[in-house]
Amino acid sequence: MIRERVRAAYRRIEQVDRPEIWVDLRPEADLLAEAAALEDRFAAGEPLPLYARLAAVKGNIDVAGLPTTAGCPAYAYEPAADAPVVARLKAAGALVLGTTNLDQFATGLVGTRSPYGAVRNAVDPAYVSGGSSSGSAVAVALGIADLALGTDTAGSGRVPAAFNGIVGLKPTPGLLPTDGVVPACASIDCVSIFARTVGEAELALRCLSDEGAFRIGVPAALGPLRDGWAEAYAAAVADYAAAGAVVTTVDLSPFLAAARLLYEGSFVAERYTAVGEFVEKHRDDVDPTVSAIITAARDLPAHRLFADQATLAELKREADAVLSTVDALLLPTTTGHPTLAEVAADPVGANAALGRFTNFANLLGLSALAVPAGTVGGRPFGVMLVGPANADAKLAALARGVEDRVRLAVVGAHLRGQPLNHELTSRGGRFVAETETAPEYRLHALATTPPKPGLVRVAEGGVAIAAEVWDLPVAGFGAFVAAVPAPLAIGRVRLRAGSEVSGFLCEPAALAAAEDISAKGGWLAHLRS
Amino acid sequence: MIRERVRAAYRRIEQVDRPEIWVDLRPEADLLAEAAALEDRFAAGEPLPLYARLAAVKGNIDVAGLPTTAGCPAYAYEPAADAPVVARLKAAGALVLGTTNLDQFATGLVGTRSPYGAVRNAVDPAYVSGGSSSGSAVAVALGIADLALGTDTAGSGRVPAAFNGIVGLKPTPGLLPTDGVVPACASIDCVSIFARTVGEAELALRCLSDEGAFRIGVPAALGPLRDGWAEAYAAAVADYAAAGAVVTTVDLSPFLAAARLLYEGSFVAERYTAVGEFVEKHRDDVDPTVSAIITAARDLPAHRLFADQATLAELKREADAVLSTVDALLLPTTTGHPTLAEVAADPVGANAALGRFTNFANLLGLSALAVPAGTVGGRPFGVMLVGPANADAKLAALARGVEDRVRLAVVGAHLRGQPLNHELTSRGGRFVAETETAPEYRLHALATTPPKPGLVRVAEGGVAIAAEVWDLPVAGFGAFVAAVPAPLAIGRVRLRAGSEVSGFLCEPAALAAAEDISAKGGWLAHLRS
Repeated sequence: MIRERVRAAYRRIEQVDRPEIWVDLRPEADLLAEAAALEDRFAAGEPLPLYARLAAVKGNIDVAGLPTTAGCPAYAYEPAADAPVVARLKAAGALVLGTTNLDQFATGLVGTRSPYGAVRNAVDPAYVSGGSSSGSAVAVALGIADLALGTDTAGSGRVPAAFNGIVGLKPTPGLLPTDGVVPACASIDCVSIFARTVGEAELALRCLSDEGAFRIGVPAALGPLRDGWAEAYAAAVADYAAAGAVVTTVDLSPFLAAARLLYEGSFVAERYTAVGEFVEKHRDDVDPTVSAIITAARDLPAHRLFADQATLAELKREADAVLSTVDALLLPTTTGHPTLAEVAADPVGANAALGRFTNFANLLGLSALAVPAGTVGGRPFGVMLVGPANADAKLAALARGVEDRVRLAVVGAHLRGQPLNHELTSRGGRFVAETETAPEYRLHALATTPPKPGLVRVAEGGVAIAAEVWDLPVAGFGAFVAAVPAPLAIGRVRLRAGSEVSGFLCEPAALAAAEDISAKGGWLAHLRS
Repeated sequence: MIRERVRAAYRRIEQVDRPEIWVDLRPEADLLAEAAALEDRFAAGEPLPLYARLAAVKGNIDVAGLPTTAGCPAYAYEPAADAPVVARLKAAGALVLGTTNLDQFATGLVGTRSPYGAVRNAVDPAYVSGGSSSGSAVAVALGIADLALGTDTAGSGRVPAAFNGIVGLKPTPGLLPTDGVVPACASIDCVSIFARTVGEAELALRCLSDEGAFRIGVPAALGPLRDGWAEAYAAAVADYAAAGAVVTTVDLSPFLAAARLLYEGSFVAERYTAVGEFVEKHRDDVDPTVSAIITAARDLPAHRLFADQATLAELKREADAVLSTVDALLLPTTTGHPTLAEVAADPVGANAALGRFTNFANLLGLSALAVPAGTVGGRPFGVMLVGPANADAKLAALARGVEDRVRLAVVGAHLRGQPLNHELTSRGGRFVAETETAPEYRLHALATTPPKPGLVRVAEGGVAIAAEVWDLPVAGFGAFVAAVPAPLAIGRVRLRAGSEVSGFLCEPAALAAAEDISAKGGWLAHLRS
C-alpha cells in the first residue's frame, strides 16, 4: 500500500523540519487520493515500473497545478501542463510530492541563492546542500522522496548529490526533453535524476527517456511447440510485461526464413570447408550423423551460395526493419525437449526441430541471450532475447530485470496494507500469494516502532502462522535485507505446502519480554483483536 | 580460499557420476596448486574479476596442456597455447577444470553425437542435454563449474542452456575472438558463455571481450582540494581497481579548459538570453548574486562567442581523443564542501571552486554520473564518472559494480580458509577486517555439514566472538542470503567498535542440542582445540 508510504513521507517532512527544501509542497490528502488510484491501476495489472516511488521536482520544471518559480516569486507562472519528464514520471507510477527549492534561475552550485532560504546539508546543517538542485537532492538524501528531478547545466545535478551522499545522474545532453523547463543555458541544459542507488537512477532514466520502457517483440505465431511450452512462453511474456516491458507483435517470417537457409540452403557447406577433408579420410572415426551432414555439403554448388547470400541480404534488411521497432525479440529458446530415446530413433529430425528460433542469429549478425523461465513437466524451460549487433549489454540489462528473483515470506509490518509494505514494492517486489507457515512456529508482538511481530521456529508446540509470499529482484532483496533492523533477521521459513523460502525470523533475546500471540494465527488477526 | 571450492567441485563430480560431461578432466592436484597461486595473487591485491570461479571449456576450444578433440579422438591435436578466450578467462582469475564433451565438430543441437557418450540432461537424465555445447552446459547446471565456454553457430550455446535451466549468452558475432577454436562455419561461429545468472555471464563477457575490463581514466593532478578529499578520492580509485577496472592516467587539461569557458568565457551569455530581460526589469526581486552574474553577461560581444565556440570545438577534439582511450573518467565530483557561513562570506568565490570538474560536461556533450564514495570528516564524499555521449547505461553498469555494497559479519564456515568462504568470493565479496562482536553473544557448535557455529545475542552472560567483516555487491549479497540454509539467518550483528552490520545469526531451536563454545572466543579457536 503506497498510502502508508505517503503518510511516512509526510511524517518524515515534519520530523526533519527543513521547510527550505520546498517551494510548494502538495497537501498530503491529494497524494493519498492519487495513491489510492494508483493502487487500483497496479492491482489491475498495469505495468508501473516506478510504482510506489515518491518524487520531488525542482522548482524550474513545470508541474501542472503548481506555479513554476525558478526560485523567483516575481517570475512565477502557472504551467498549462506537466513538463514531459514530469508526465513520464507520473505515467510510470511515481507520485509527485511538490516542487523544490533551487539556486535562483538555476544559477549557482551552492544551494543558498534563494528567497525560499538557504538549503542546509542533509548530513550536517552547518554546511551547504550544494545546488542549484538543492531541495531535490536533500529531499532524497533525507528519505522523504525516493527520486527527484533536478537540472544540470554546469553541475547542478551532481554537486548536490556529492554533498548529500546520493546518486546524481546527468544524462547525455538531449537524451531527456527540456520542454517545460525554465532555461539556464538552453543549448546545454539537462534534466537530471537523484536517487539513493544507481539502479533506481537507471530505472528512472529508462522511464523518462524518449525510448520509454523496453519494447519486446513477440511473434503472432510460433509454429508447433511441445505440450506445455506455449503456456510457459506466455507466462514468460507476462513476466516481462509485469517488469515494465511494452509487448508488441512482430513478424518473425524473415528470421525464420533466414534460419532455414542454414541447413536447407548452402551455408552448411562452410562445415565442409572446415573439416570436410578430414571427415572424408576418417569416415570410421566420425559420428555417422555428423559425417552424413558434412559430406553431403561437399556437392553444394557455389552458384547456389551466391543465390543464398543474395536471399540472406534481403532477409537481413527485413529482419533489421523488424528489430528497429523493438529493443529485443522474446522467443522460446527452442521448440520442445526430446528424450535420449527420441533422438536415437530420429537423429536428424529431432535435431532439426531444435534450431527453429536459434539458427538465424549468427547468419543475421545478431546478439542473443538464453535465460531460464520456469519449468514444463518438471524440466527447465527457457526463453531467449534476440537483439541487433552489439546489443549484448542491453539484453543482459533487460533479462536482469526479470530473472534472479528471490521469494520472501513476510508475516507482519510488510504484509499488504501494513506500514512497511512499501519497502517491498519500492524495491520491485511483487505479491505472489497468501499462505501460512508450517505448524512449527510461534509469533510474538515485539515492542518496536512501528509494531512488528517476531516469528520463531520451536521444537514443540508450534502452530501455522498467516504469511504472504513476495518476490523481489535479487539486488532489491539484498538492499532490503541489509536494511532489516535488529531484532529481526532473514532466514529460511517453512511453508505449509512443505516448501521453504527466505523469510523473517526474530532474535530470541527480543522474545522474552514480548507477548505470545500465536493463538491469533497471524499478525492481522492480532491487530484486529 | 578457493582451494576449498576446488575440493567441493571434485566431490561434486564424483557425486553426480556423469563421466560423459568431460573429454579431459584435469587432476584435482593441478587445480589445487593453481588455486594456491591464485590466492597469493588475490592477496597481493591483483584485480581478478573472475576470482574463485571454476570454468569448463568446450572440447573444440584450445586449452594448453590438453588435446583439442572437437569430440573426435582421431582429429585431436595438442594446441601450442590457450585460445585467447581461455587465456583471458584465466587472466581474470578463473580456474579451468578441463575440456567438455560436445556434438562432434559442433554439429548438432542434441548433445548425443559423440564417441565420449550422449550427455544426459542435468535435471532429468532420460532427456537430452541439448548441444552442441553439451558438457559445458551440464557442468554449470550441476554446480560443478561456475562458468563455461561453449560455441554457438546455429544455437549450440543457447539450446543446452534452455534444457538445463541456466543462462546462455551468445555474443554478437565478432565480439569474442574465435582464434584457437575448431571452426564449424568459420564466418559465423561465436564463443558463448554459460553461467547460472545473467550477472555472472555479463561479467565473464566483459572479461573475455577485446575491450577487456573497464578502463578508468584518472588525472595526473587534480588541483587544490579541501583537506581529506585527495585521500578519499584515492580510496575511491582503489575501489574501482579492486572491482576490476584498469586505471590509466589521462590528461585532464582540455576538460578543465572547457570548464573555464563556461563562466570565464562568453557562454554565460545564454543565461541572459533566457531570463536577462526579466532580471533587468525586476532587480529587487532577484537574488543579488544571481542578478550580478546574469546582468554582467549582457555586454559580452558576439565576436567573443565566435572565438570561444572555435576554442571549444578544438578542446572537444582533444577531450574526445582522451575519452577514446578509456571507458570513463573518474573524478571527485567537486573540490571541497563549504559551510553556509563560508558561502555567505564569499558568495561568488566559494561557488566558482565547486564547478571545476562539472562545468565541462554539457559544453562537451558528455554523460556523467555522480555517486557516493564514503565520507570526509563525517560528511558525504562523492566521485563522478564521465563518459562520451550516450554512455549513460555504461556508466551506470560501471558504478553498480562498485557502489551498493553491503557489509557482512561472518563467524564460522565463511571465514577466510574455511569451507564456505568461496560463497563470498564467488559473489564479489572482499575481505575488510578481522574484528570481534560486542560482548553480547554466545557461540554454539551446530550439528551441520560442513560444521558451522550458531551465533546468538543474549540478554546476560554474553562474550565477544571473533568475526570477519566482508563487503559484497548488493546483488551478490541478495543471492548469498537467499542461499543461506536453516537454521542460520542474516540479521544485524553488533561489533566491538559499536557499529552494527549485517551478520549471521541462528534460530534458537537449533541451539538447544548444540555445544556452547563461547569460552573459546571464536570458531577458529574451537576448531584448533
